Amino acid sequence: MLQPMRTDPQLTVVALGGNATYPKGIRGTAEEQFEILRRTCEHLAWMATRGNRLVLTHGNGPVIGNILIRMAMASTVVPAMPMDVSVADSQGGMGYMIQQSLANALLAAGVPAPVASVVTQVEVDADDPAFRHPSKPVGPFYTPEEAERIASRTGWEFRDDAGRGHRRVVPSPPPKAIVELEAVRHLVAAGVVPIAAGGGGIPVTRQADGRYRGVAAVIDKDLTGALLALGLGAGLYLNLTGVDSVALDFGTPAERPVPRLSVAEAKAHLEAGQFAEGSMAPKIRAAVQYLEGGGDTVIITSLERVRDALEGKGGTRLARDP
Amino acid sequence: MLQPMRTDPQLTVVALGGNATYPKGIRGTAEEQFEILRRTCEHLAWMATRGNRLVLTHGNGPVIGNILIRMAMASTVVPAMPMDVSVADSQGGMGYMIQQSLANALLAAGVPAPVASVVTQVEVDADDPAFRHPSKPVGPFYTPEEAERIASRTGWEFRDDAGRGHRRVVPSPPPKAIVELEAVRHLVAAGVVPIAAGGGGIPVTRQADGRYRGVAAVIDKDLTGALLALGLGAGLYLNLTGVDSVALDFGTPAERPVPRLSVAEAKAHLEAGQFAEGSMAPKIRAAVQYLEGGGDTVIITSLERVRDALEGKGGTRLARDP
Repeated sequence: MLQPMRTDPQLTVVALGGNATYPKGIRGTAEEQFEILRRTCEHLAWMATRGNRLVLTHGNGPVIGNILIRMAMASTVVPAMPMDVSVADSQGGMGYMIQQSLANALLAAGVPAPVASVVTQVEVDADDPAFRHPSKPVGPFYTPEEAERIASRTGWEFRDDAGRGHRRVVPSPPPKAIVELEAVRHLVAAGVVPIAAGGGGIPVTRQADGRYRGVAAVIDKDLTGALLALGLGAGLYLNLTGVDSVALDFGTPAERPVPRLSVAEAKAHLEAGQFAEGSMAPKIRAAVQYLEGGGDTVIITSLERVRDALEGKGGTRLARDP
Repeated sequence: MLQPMRTDPQLTVVALGGNATYPKGIRGTAEEQFEILRRTCEHLAWMATRGNRLVLTHGNGPVIGNILIRMAMASTVVPAMPMDVSVADSQGGMGYMIQQSLANALLAAGVPAPVASVVTQVEVDADDPAFRHPSKPVGPFYTPEEAERIASRTGWEFRDDAGRGHRRVVPSPPPKAIVELEAVRHLVAAGVVPIAAGGGGIPVTRQADGRYRGVAAVIDKDLTGALLALGLGAGLYLNLTGVDSVALDFGTPAERPVPRLSVAEAKAHLEAGQFAEGSMAPKIRAAVQYLEGGGDTVIITSLERVRDALEGKGGTRLARDP
């Protein structure tokens, strides 16, 4: 873990989930994505008018899936790129769409600022146990026969994905370090709004001689966001997701939103299995890491509730235990 | 044109052509591309050891073609992205491969430095005459019937490409401004090696209200490199290409390399049709623009000759007329 830095209360790392960039139900055209981002960035620009200095990170939600589908469908004509390059592609395309939309929104809101996406590698530990247990499904669905044929050629692992077909699974190790952190820090200091570590970052390992090298993995974007916020000394880590608040007993008649959580409470609820893996659990885990690392405040909420949440009237707020 | 700035003689904008990133004859796997980049970046790291402060830009050569082929082949399953987003994808993937390779090479050469790619939009003029005469072929080849079918659905223009099939043609307007120039300038000031405006930049126009919007176009990377070098006040614009020197009467028995060219000579040779369009002509035009804009020196050479050329023993050097 990075050493906690003195945090800047106005510096805000915003993690955008799929709802803010590529929600379920759209076809996925560029027009649709730009339209979603226009709305998302109006909220972000409002934050800038109230004094939050923004740093963005984002999931690569269905975009990386689409890229992997294209790679697979065209692989007899042009070589498919590996996971690291595919994640980098998604950082380019999504980074562009977000930076254009946000710069336009900041201009319209009367708080113009340069916005720039930085292609970002994130280091993972080559010895992480995650590499022995690939668990994260990525890319297209295959029949068992197709999957076996591809596996014999590539060495990839496949798994049946909830009966919908076979999908490649890759390891999902936790992030250790953000390779381009220094560049991002300089941009923040210069008043540029950076977009960094999209899709959780391009997964790389550091070799004995210090050189980096890409690996086939997917890094959790919530954990990478926490690392980014700590590394930059951001006082607020805002995680925008599909629900207005963290809830206990989610999906049961006893479901209730939680406006506040201490670190101790968050850990106890995690332990008790209150939060779904692949959904709220990584967000809570990331919040705990950020707060235990020296961060000040985490807010988890939806785009629709973000204005209220920042003014203390909605969402879930997590803070360091006193 | 940007106002000429005081130039920094050590600050060097390097434009990498296809030979340095994805030469003809490779299949195009990531392994091949990384291997080419390993060699390219050894030369660049050598430059850093002799005091050149590097800024990189690059063509997106066959990479954007591969991306467009994948988009087209998968378009019945996942929506194809437009040109602007496709160029952005290429900046992500190529930027990643270059920044990892260069950081590794700088480390090995004993001059470690952070390297970071910035997703870069480049503004073109919506009223540019190029938009009335799309001329740049992009993406896959089609039969005339396929081309007509796609044209009727999309409004794209197609043209027969040297008898090899029909290809989409897009406008190639000259670059007007680098939208993220300020971010790149801050990175340079902080000692970060930036990679910017890959593929000539993501083509955008600026609307009456100041907002940017992507357009279907391809911007010449040599001209964008000149604009970048001027905008940053770089004293050297190094254009790495497939030939050791600029030649006169190229491809004839009278062919001879030119070690030096003044701006006046370069313009006269351009006028006389000495340089092939789509090949040496844009490089010479870019050199002239850079020098007339206030730049100091342009070197055009190959990767293999770059060390000699920097020491005045090869390549072609263009300088401002005294």
